[in-house]
Amino acid sequence: MRIGALEAGGTKMVCAVGDETGAIFERESFPTLTPDETLPVLTGWFAERGVEALGIGAFGPTGVDPASATFGDILETPKVAWRGCHLRQAFVDALGVPVGYDTDVNVACLGEATFGDSKGLGDLVYVTIGTGVGAGVILGGRLLHGMLHPEAGHMLVTRVAGDNGPCHCPSHACCLEGMAAGPSLQERWGKPAVELADKPEVWEIEADYLAQMCANLVLVYSPRRIILGGGVMHQEQLYPLVRKKTVDYLGGYITAPELADIDSYIVAPSLNDNQGAMGALELGRRALLAEA
Amino acid sequence: MRIGALEAGGTKMVCAVGDETGAIFERESFPTLTPDETLPVLTGWFAERGVEALGIGAFGPTGVDPASATFGDILETPKVAWRGCHLRQAFVDALGVPVGYDTDVNVACLGEATFGDSKGLGDLVYVTIGTGVGAGVILGGRLLHGMLHPEAGHMLVTRVAGDNGPCHCPSHACCLEGMAAGPSLQERWGKPAVELADKPEVWEIEADYLAQMCANLVLVYSPRRIILGGGVMHQEQLYPLVRKKTVDYLGGYITAPELADIDSYIVAPSLNDNQGAMGALELGRRALLAEA
Repeated sequence: MRIGALEAGGTKMVCAVGDETGAIFERESFPTLTPDETLPVLTGWFAERGVEALGIGAFGPTGVDPASATFGDILETPKVAWRGCHLRQAFVDALGVPVGYDTDVNVACLGEATFGDSKGLGDLVYVTIGTGVGAGVILGGRLLHGMLHPEAGHMLVTRVAGDNGPCHCPSHACCLEGMAAGPSLQERWGKPAVELADKPEVWEIEADYLAQMCANLVLVYSPRRIILGGGVMHQEQLYPLVRKKTVDYLGGYITAPELADIDSYIVAPSLNDNQGAMGALELGRRALLAEA
Repeated sequence: MRIGALEAGGTKMVCAVGDETGAIFERESFPTLTPDETLPVLTGWFAERGVEALGIGAFGPTGVDPASATFGDILETPKVAWRGCHLRQAFVDALGVPVGYDTDVNVACLGEATFGDSKGLGDLVYVTIGTGVGAGVILGGRLLHGMLHPEAGHMLVTRVAGDNGPCHCPSHACCLEGMAAGPSLQERWGKPAVELADKPEVWEIEADYLAQMCANLVLVYSPRRIILGGGVMHQEQLYPLVRKKTVDYLGGYITAPELADIDSYIVAPSLNDNQGAMGALELGRRALLAEA
């Protein structure tokens, strides 16, 4: 199979071609301008390469319910030019091949569950902590959608004692993304995360918010593993801190064999930041099978 | 069909006989003593009545994964006599009929999704707020289990300004059950909930915690409806307060048609406190079909 993969982000669009084993043959990035400017570039790129199917992981909020009239559309995004864009349909029309569609984070979760160390786990949460915080979720082997799709990155958190930083989310007084995404870190400390690596106080606070999230993810989804990815998690000193604080927050309440080994329960992505593209390949494969 | 339904609780065991339409023919309660004392009474009760199948909704934590060695067992409960009890197996052995098994709250959620106003919704959360707080969850039409089962009643919450009450949970410094279940209400105000009905300050604080939970449930599960039941919710003045505060906490971030009508999004149970028994009947029906 020759499958296309599109990671549709708010700042860049990453196009790739690969196959059903997750192998990626070619990849190219384009800036996210307006739909009128960007979509023809993307559809042209895939058309030239003759893919049999396409998988799209899109920024949200977006319609992921195939039964809904807004399936494949970008919804109420702050990126105004993209509101109401029929993203999936543009590729269906231009390429005439099966097109699978889900959120960027669900697709990354699918990549890890299909090709990564979490293969076969069935109950898995993938969180990216970067310019925003997003969570992709697989439960009982299936991607979670619901009414819209999970937006667990905006869960309410409790302000950490001693943290006087602002909440960077325009909608919420104190939510995870507002307190723990890259822009909040930068605003709290006056520098980007990458320049703060040697300041333990930065990562103590950051890890506390992420641990509040992880504890709640355990309590709510009961996943068999939590994968933490994204730019902020390139600060690898965060992992042991988040693990310890998550255990503290849970207070021994949940006992399960998976959780007993916290080092293999809260982990980094295993696919070298290819989880999004690889998940999109799997989504494309599924779309091809479903229409075969 | 003649189906048995057992609501296995920490203080009482409610046995019922009914059919696949949710009709309940007979019901009787027994105190929860030790397994040695109580189980023979229960198995005898169902054996005398000749049921073709049984559904059990059990207090947790309990094993709900049919693939696990602990399926149908009571796990690390504070009720020490019941730890490790092979609850489901006792009924399989004594009755020789198919036995469906899940958590009490998943079963209540199933009752509402099968026989109640939420029939056919597919993505549904049922929360009981009583002596504890528990959540049953159906996503994509299936009961959520995961590694263990949801324990969303213990999600971390932020202390409400002006609330000096203690957290009543032995495991968590500030979790929903610890701050909002019946015993916490009683400890905060010195009287049981039912004697506090005319004190608005009581319900403002209570509604705030429940709204923090509801906002997080929306963000995490993206359900099409949230049902709030249990003894504390008999204080019906809570519903409008919880609805308003949930909308406030969400801050307009999630837009979905279901959520736009908050009065039909956060609702009371529709089955007159029969949702647990009726869900257990459905669980028994499914077990019978699965083994047929």
